[in-house]
Amino acid sequence: MNTEVPRAAFDLSLYLVLDPDMCGGVAGMVRVTEAAIAGGVTMVQLRAIGWRKRAFWDAACALQPLCRSHRVPLIINDHVDVALAVDADGVHVGQRDFPAKEVRRLLGETKIIGVSVSNAQEWRDIEPGAADYLGVGPVWLTATKPEAGPALGIDGLRSLLALRAGAASPKVVAIGSINAHNAREVMETGVDGVAVVSAICASEAPEEAAQALCEVIGS
Amino acid sequence: MNTEVPRAAFDLSLYLVLDPDMCGGVAGMVRVTEAAIAGGVTMVQLRAIGWRKRAFWDAACALQPLCRSHRVPLIINDHVDVALAVDADGVHVGQRDFPAKEVRRLLGETKIIGVSVSNAQEWRDIEPGAADYLGVGPVWLTATKPEAGPALGIDGLRSLLALRAGAASPKVVAIGSINAHNAREVMETGVDGVAVVSAICASEAPEEAAQALCEVIGS
Repeated sequence: MNTEVPRAAFDLSLYLVLDPDMCGGVAGMVRVTEAAIAGGVTMVQLRAIGWRKRAFWDAACALQPLCRSHRVPLIINDHVDVALAVDADGVHVGQRDFPAKEVRRLLGETKIIGVSVSNAQEWRDIEPGAADYLGVGPVWLTATKPEAGPALGIDGLRSLLALRAGAASPKVVAIGSINAHNAREVMETGVDGVAVVSAICASEAPEEAAQALCEVIGS
Repeated sequence: MNTEVPRAAFDLSLYLVLDPDMCGGVAGMVRVTEAAIAGGVTMVQLRAIGWRKRAFWDAACALQPLCRSHRVPLIINDHVDVALAVDADGVHVGQRDFPAKEVRRLLGETKIIGVSVSNAQEWRDIEPGAADYLGVGPVWLTATKPEAGPALGIDGLRSLLALRAGAASPKVVAIGSINAHNAREVMETGVDGVAVVSAICASEAPEEAAQALCEVIGS
């Protein structure tokens, strides 16, 4: 079962975005990821803003076999070279990273590509077919990504979701201060899942935190 | 003649390391590079510490056709994905970037790989055959790379050069506050070339600055 998840079959329901500072470095990220997967997390993203490449690559090397053994996709934030080096399942890019089309060219057709979107213009600017999913947010303001822009709120999220155009449209995961208390409200907008940072990384019991989120979102 | 320089044939004599702030952004780097190549620069490295990937990639896209048309290798600092995206001639890594062996695996056998080395331990730690050249320094202290460690001085540079082991050893380019006034002294240690940042990027006449350096180093 040590195979990668096909690009068409990934599950955004509960998407853990790792914060190395909150988790306590590489060992902490491994511990949190293992617990969070046991608790029901369906995707994992390694995001380590400002980390030098060696440390980022070390972290990816530690996380890749763990995620692969559970068939949970490991997505690398920004660094396509690290994704290639560890044969990760995909890459997530923001508006100031590589364009999705370039990531697709570098990664090939079998990998998952996600793009951060915070407004209608950014959504419309994505080349058709380039992204497999969009990370839409911040739903609420967040300390973990201060440059993420103004909060959308539930209404703003709904407005953006109206841009979806049928089955060919990328899936959507919402992000930005989502936790077990507000996740149901987010899911009711029709998103395919929620992405969380603090709700799991800052928890003293990440497995239980993931379980609680799973119950709320009904996955 | 729009072909890449073979890995075996690169010339380290006068290696321009671009500083985007000194040059004035992407347009400035293009202007400086064009003038510096006219003045005799033999290699160009794009280094933009702290730049996000989109901006870094934009700069690489602008520099690649210019360097390629003059058959001057363009080397990308740190970001293997950017090098792959623009088909650059190689990658330069520091001690906190990807290990050279991993860069070789990602880039293939035809590209040039350089590694920064500041002491004997770092030199010995490089996997045999992984690096095509070493960037050794800082010879003198430099404001453009404050984390580069203590200055080697000419004597320290000579000590490190004693680690070279015959023709299979990587070539060496010295770096760290090298300019037209001190370049001869550096060349006399037996290095294959000098790398400069400020001496060209901060010059009001980069072509003449490169010419002056070429005369001193005798290339």
